[in-house]
Amino acid sequence: MGVQKLKIAAAGLGRMGKRHAINFLHRTPRAELVAAFTPDEAETQWAKTNLEPYGVRLYDDYDAMISQEGLQAVVIATVTKVHAEEALKAMEKGLHVLCEKPISTDVSICRKVVDAAKAKPHLKVMCGFSRRFDSSYRDAYEKMDAGVIGTPTIFRSQTCDKHDPSPFFLEYSAQNGGCFVDMTVHDIDLALWFFGDNLIVKSVAAAGVAAVQTGLRDLGDCDNAVGIVEFWGGKIAYFYNSRMMAHGQEDTTEIIGTGGKLVVNGNPQANLVNTYTSAGIIRETPPHYYGRFEYAFVTESNEFTAAVLDNTKVPLKLSNAIRVVEIGSYLQEALSTGKKLYFNEAGQRVEQPRL
Amino acid sequence: MGVQKLKIAAAGLGRMGKRHAINFLHRTPRAELVAAFTPDEAETQWAKTNLEPYGVRLYDDYDAMISQEGLQAVVIATVTKVHAEEALKAMEKGLHVLCEKPISTDVSICRKVVDAAKAKPHLKVMCGFSRRFDSSYRDAYEKMDAGVIGTPTIFRSQTCDKHDPSPFFLEYSAQNGGCFVDMTVHDIDLALWFFGDNLIVKSVAAAGVAAVQTGLRDLGDCDNAVGIVEFWGGKIAYFYNSRMMAHGQEDTTEIIGTGGKLVVNGNPQANLVNTYTSAGIIRETPPHYYGRFEYAFVTESNEFTAAVLDNTKVPLKLSNAIRVVEIGSYLQEALSTGKKLYFNEAGQRVEQPRL
Amino acid sequence: MGVQKLKIAAAGLGRMGKRHAINFLHRTPRAELVAAFTPDEAETQWAKTNLEPYGVRLYDDYDAMISQEGLQAVVIATVTKVHAEEALKAMEKGLHVLCEKPISTDVSICRKVVDAAKAKPHLKVMCGFSRRFDSSYRDAYEKMDAGVIGTPTIFRSQTCDKHDPSPFFLEYSAQNGGCFVDMTVHDIDLALWFFGDNLIVKSVAAAGVAAVQTGLRDLGDCDNAVGIVEFWGGKIAYFYNSRMMAHGQEDTTEIIGTGGKLVVNGNPQANLVNTYTSAGIIRETPPHYYGRFEYAFVTESNEFTAAVLDNTKVPLKLSNAIRVVEIGSYLQEALSTGKKLYFNEAGQRVEQPRL
Amino acid sequence: MGVQKLKIAAAGLGRMGKRHAINFLHRTPRAELVAAFTPDEAETQWAKTNLEPYGVRLYDDYDAMISQEGLQAVVIATVTKVHAEEALKAMEKGLHVLCEKPISTDVSICRKVVDAAKAKPHLKVMCGFSRRFDSSYRDAYEKMDAGVIGTPTIFRSQTCDKHDPSPFFLEYSAQNGGCFVDMTVHDIDLALWFFGDNLIVKSVAAAGVAAVQTGLRDLGDCDNAVGIVEFWGGKIAYFYNSRMMAHGQEDTTEIIGTGGKLVVNGNPQANLVNTYTSAGIIRETPPHYYGRFEYAFVTESNEFTAAVLDNTKVPLKLSNAIRVVEIGSYLQEALSTGKKLYFNEAGQRVEQPRL
Repeated sequence: MGVQKLKIAAAGLGRMGKRHAINFLHRTPRAELVAAFTPDEAETQWAKTNLEPYGVRLYDDYDAMISQEGLQAVVIATVTKVHAEEALKAMEKGLHVLCEKPISTDVSICRKVVDAAKAKPHLKVMCGFSRRFDSSYRDAYEKMDAGVIGTPTIFRSQTCDKHDPSPFFLEYSAQNGGCFVDMTVHDIDLALWFFGDNLIVKSVAAAGVAAVQTGLRDLGDCDNAVGIVEFWGGKIAYFYNSRMMAHGQEDTTEIIGTGGKLVVNGNPQANLVNTYTSAGIIRETPPHYYGRFEYAFVTESNEFTAAVLDNTKVPLKLSNAIRVVEIGSYLQEALSTGKKLYFNEAGQRVEQPRL
Repeated sequence: MGVQKLKIAAAGLGRMGKRHAINFLHRTPRAELVAAFTPDEAETQWAKTNLEPYGVRLYDDYDAMISQEGLQAVVIATVTKVHAEEALKAMEKGLHVLCEKPISTDVSICRKVVDAAKAKPHLKVMCGFSRRFDSSYRDAYEKMDAGVIGTPTIFRSQTCDKHDPSPFFLEYSAQNGGCFVDMTVHDIDLALWFFGDNLIVKSVAAAGVAAVQTGLRDLGDCDNAVGIVEFWGGKIAYFYNSRMMAHGQEDTTEIIGTGGKLVVNGNPQANLVNTYTSAGIIRETPPHYYGRFEYAFVTESNEFTAAVLDNTKVPLKLSNAIRVVEIGSYLQEALSTGKKLYFNEAGQRVEQPRL
Repeated sequence: MGVQKLKIAAAGLGRMGKRHAINFLHRTPRAELVAAFTPDEAETQWAKTNLEPYGVRLYDDYDAMISQEGLQAVVIATVTKVHAEEALKAMEKGLHVLCEKPISTDVSICRKVVDAAKAKPHLKVMCGFSRRFDSSYRDAYEKMDAGVIGTPTIFRSQTCDKHDPSPFFLEYSAQNGGCFVDMTVHDIDLALWFFGDNLIVKSVAAAGVAAVQTGLRDLGDCDNAVGIVEFWGGKIAYFYNSRMMAHGQEDTTEIIGTGGKLVVNGNPQANLVNTYTSAGIIRETPPHYYGRFEYAFVTESNEFTAAVLDNTKVPLKLSNAIRVVEIGSYLQEALSTGKKLYFNEAGQRVEQPRL
Repeated sequence: MGVQKLKIAAAGLGRMGKRHAINFLHRTPRAELVAAFTPDEAETQWAKTNLEPYGVRLYDDYDAMISQEGLQAVVIATVTKVHAEEALKAMEKGLHVLCEKPISTDVSICRKVVDAAKAKPHLKVMCGFSRRFDSSYRDAYEKMDAGVIGTPTIFRSQTCDKHDPSPFFLEYSAQNGGCFVDMTVHDIDLALWFFGDNLIVKSVAAAGVAAVQTGLRDLGDCDNAVGIVEFWGGKIAYFYNSRMMAHGQEDTTEIIGTGGKLVVNGNPQANLVNTYTSAGIIRETPPHYYGRFEYAFVTESNEFTAAVLDNTKVPLKLSNAIRVVEIGSYLQEALSTGKKLYFNEAGQRVEQPRL
C-alpha cells in the first residue's frame, strides 16, 4: 500500500510563495502540491515552467483553487493584507492552513482568525515563524530547557537585513506595519518561546532613526530601531532591527540566564570558507534571510504536514501569533510617539509605571 | 506534459546506502527511486518501512534488480569489494552508474571499470567524491579560480573522524585498504581538483601510529598518519588522517597560494550555537562526516541525475578515481615500508630522488 | 644628561590602586613612583614588600603625602567618595592629577573638580576611562575616523562582569552609585568618543532586574540592566550591564554606521588557546576587567606622564567626565523610577517627548 | 634596603637587539641595563637617543663592554654567526648569558657553547626560544600536563611569515641556515617541550619550493617547506614553514592527544576588532612575529633575571638548543637532498628504515 500524502495548494507565488511551493513540491515527502494560485502574470509563467510539469494545477482565482476536489490544505504566502481573509475562506472550506507571518499587522484581525480556528478544532492552523524550525535555535532551546544556563532572564535579539537600495523596498514598507511589526516580530516570537508564552508585558520603550532609507520618514517608520520590552516576573527582552547592514543578513540572539548564556549566530557566515589576503582574513555572510533560514522553511513544511496527517499538535500555538503582533504594535507605538508604555500586572495599559 | 524522471535503483542499504536511497527518493526532484537491493535482513526491514510504501521494489538479488524493466541507472553503495563487479554488470545492462568511492582499493581493478566505461561513452559513470559537491569547497574553488590567492602552491588537508570505540570499526578497517586509501582519498581528490588533475607525483613520504585503535597494528594500519606528496612543477600537498578525534569530525583544507590562502572548515561547528558557562565558551562539532557533508550528497544525486537526463558531462572525471586511489596506495606503501618513494618527470618509479 | 622623570605618588592601594602603583613604578619609563598612601594595614604590608624596596615612601596620611618635597603628580585610586576631595587638595598643592573613574557619582561634585581644574590650566587633570587607551578600541576609532563604516549611527555597548558571589560585592555596591553609574559609564564614555562629545541627549529609558544578587533590590539597584539613550541628530546608543556572567568578563561594543560596522571583542577570549574535547571546542575568557584591559592601564600611565612632561593635552577632556556621569545618572533615574526621561534640543528636561 | 638589580649589557642593537635592550631597560623591574654594544653607526645613534639618557653606557667594542666593572650578565642579539663566540667570551668573564636563538646554525658549534656552560655550572646560560614564554603556549602546556588531552601523539606546528618583498630578506637568508633551521627551530623546540625532550628521532622527511622568493633557489633554500619528524615511541611531529603569507604572521600549533587536542593561535588576529563591510567580515593579523610574541620576550627577560638573582634553574635547558638545531639540520638535509633520513633506536643514522 502506498504512502498517504497531504494534498496542499500554494496561494501566492511571490518571493516567499515560490519557495513554499517548491518546498511542498520537492522537499516534503509526505505532501503533494496539487494546486497553486497567483493573480500575477510573471508568476504564472514561472509556475508553468516550475510547477505545472509536476502535475500542479494553476489558478488565477483563489476561491476557485480552494474549491479544488480533494484539496486538504493551503499554504498562504500572498501579500500580508489578504492573509486573514484567505485563511478564513480556507477554514470555511474545511482546509488546514499554514499562513506566512504575520496573519495581519492589525491585532483585531489576527484575533478574528484565531477565533475562527478555535471554532474548527479539527483543522490545523499555523502561522509560520520560521526561526522556530531552525536547528540552531532548537539546539539552544533544548540546552536552555536542560538547565544549562539556569533561569533565562535577559533576551537580546536582532533582525538585521542587508541594505537593499532598490525601489522595491519602500513600496514593500508602506504596507508592512513598520519595522517592529515586520522584522522584530521574529525576535518577539523567539522571546515568547524562550521565556514562556504566558508572560505579561510591564513596559515598552523604543527609539529609532531613518538613516539610509530616508523615504521611511514620510511613512513614520525607521530603518534602525531599538526597543526594550520588560515583563512582569523579572524578565527583559531588548531588540534591534536594521535594514542598513553592509555585509549581509545578521540575525543574532542571546539568551542570558542566571547560570550561563546561549548565543545563536554570534558569528554570521555564508559558509565554511575563510579567505586570507593582504586585506586580512575575510568571512562572508548570507545576503538575505533565506540564505540563513532555508532549511528552517523546509522543516516547517514537513512538520506542518506531519501534524495534519498524524493529527498531532502543530508546533506553534496560533494564539501566539496575536501576542507577537500585539507586542510588535506596542513597540511601533512607542517608536512613533516617543513615549514609554506601561502595563499593570493584568496586562492592562496604565498611565504611570508600576514598580 | 509531465516531467521526465530518471528511474534509478539503489544497491546496498547500509549506512551510506540508506542515505543515497532516501536522497534519490525524496530529495532529487528529477529522479525516481524504483528499486533497491540488499542481501541483509535488517536492511530489508528498514526498506519495507521507508522505501516500499513509496513504490520502491525491493530485491535480495543484485542481478535481478538491474534487470528491472525500464531501469536507467543504479547508485552503488555496497561494501567496497563488490563496487567494481556491480558497476561492470550495470554497464553491461546499459545502466548509468553512480558509485560510492572508492571503485576499488586496488588500482588495477579501478582501471578495468574505467576502461569499461570508456567503451560505452553514452553511459554516465561517476565515482562520488562528496566534497566536490560541498558548497564551501566550491566557493573556495571559485575564489581560487578567480585569482584571489595567486598560484596555488601548498595544499594541506585532513580527514579526521571522531573516535569510534565500537567493534564495528576494526571489522570495517580490515577491508578498507588502509587509512590513506579509506580516508585520505578525499583529500587527494581535492588536491587534484585544486591543483589541476594533470599533475605528476615527484615523491611520497608518510608516517603513522596506531594510538587508540591498537588492533590496527595487526592489520598494518594506523589511526593517525601524516603524508607528504610532492608534485613536479613546484606544488606540494600534505595530509593528515585520524580516527582519534575526541570532539567530532574535523575535515579541514587549506589552499595556500602565492598571493593568499583559502581555508575550508578551519573552525568546525555543528551549528550556529555557542554556549557560555563557567567552563568557558563551547562550540560543538558534527559527530561524523554526514553531519558535515549531508547536503553535498544531495547535490551529488541531483547533479548526477541532471547529467544523465540532459546528457551533459558528469562533474567528476572517472579517470580521476584511478589517480586518487593510486596516490593513496603510494602513501599507504610509504607508510607500511617506512620508505620514501621517488618518481621521475614521467611519473615512473625511480630509486633515487630527482631534484 | 639623564632623563627627566615625573615624580608621582599613588593614593589608595586597593585592588586598582596596587595596579596603578606598579604600573607607574615598573611600566612607565618616564615616571618615578616616589610615594604611596594607604590608611589600610594590609595594604601597607603589601607596599612594604612591593614598593618600599624600590624607593617609594609610604604614608598613612594623604595630606602628608601630597606635601612631599619635589612631588609633581598624584594618581588617585582610593574609594570613589573621596576622589573629588583628594583631587581638589592635590590641585591646591599644584600637583597634576590622574583620577580613577568616576570623579564622583554626584554630578555637582564632578563639576566642582572640573571648575577647579579650569582655574589652574597649567595642571594636567585627567579622569581615566581605561577603554580609551585600549589598542582595539583605538583601532576601531581610527577605522571609523577613516570612513570605513560611513556615518556612525547606532552604538551598542555592554559591560558584563563575571558573577562574583563573595560578600565583598554588595558592600562595594552600596556606594558605587548604581549599575549604570558604576559600569555603564565606560560604555557612555565610548559612545561620546565615537559619536562626538557635543551630542545632546533626547531621551533616556531603562529597565533592570536583580536576578542573582538579590541583595541589590534593597539598594534599589540591579545586576542586569538595559538602557537606551537617544541623541538629537539621529544617533542612538543602547547599553547592557550585567554582574551575572558565568564565563567571565565580556565587554563588547558595536559601532554601526551607514556603510558598515565595527565590533570590538565580539568573541571574548583569555588567550589564543582552544581546547578540543568530547565536550566540544572550548575557549576561555578573562575572569575580570583587568584581564581584558591590563595594557590599556599601562598605556594610560604612560600617556598621562607624557602629557605632563611634554606639556601637551591629556588624551581625554575632563569635562567629559561630567557628561558621562550625568548620562549615567539619567539612566539610573530611568531605571529606579521606571519612567522615560525627555529632553529638548537644548538638553533641558521636558515633560513630553519632542519628536 | 633597596632592591638588588641584575646589571646586564645588550650586545647587538639590530631589530631584535633594540627590543631586548628596551625590555631590560624598561620592562624588567629587577634588571638594570648598564651597557650596550653595537658596531653600527645608525644603531649607535638610536642608542644615544633611547638608551644613553637612562644611564646605559655605549660601546662599539664587544670585549670592552663585557669588561665593564660590575657587569653581571649579557643578552646577545647580534648576527647569528657571532652568537657562539660572544657567548663563550662572556662566560669566560664570568657573565650570565641570555642568547638569541640559535646559538649557531652548526651543531658542533652549539655543542662547544653547551660544554663551556657545563664547565661553569654557577653561570646561567639560556638560549631564548620565545614561544616557551608565551602565555597561550604555557596555558596549553598546563592543560596537556593536567591530562586534558590524554597522551600527546601528533604535533602540528607552523611558522609562517608575512611575505617581505624587500631586498633585506635575501641578504638575511644567505646566513640563516635555511628555512628549517631559521624558522622551524621554534616549532621543533615546542615539539620537544610538549612531547618531552628525551625523544629519539626515527625518521625525517621534507619537501619544499621557492615560490615567491625565487632567489632562494640559488641558495638551495625554499620559501615554503613541509617536514615530518617521526620519533621512536609512537609520536609524530609535522611542520610547515612559509615566507609567503599575504595576510601576516601565522604561527599555529596543534597538540593532538589520545583524548583531545589543543590548538594555539588557530585564528590569528592582530587585536579584538572585526570590521563588517560589503567585502564581508574582516579580521586583521599581526604583521610580524613581534606583533604576536612581544609579551613573551618581556616574560623571558624577567624570568632570566629572576633565575640569576634567585639562583634557580633557567626555564629552558641549554642542551635542548643543540637538539633543536640538530633536528632542524636533519630537516634541512632531507629538504636539500630529497632523501628521507632514518635512525635506529639509539638515534644513530642508518641506511634503511627500522619499523
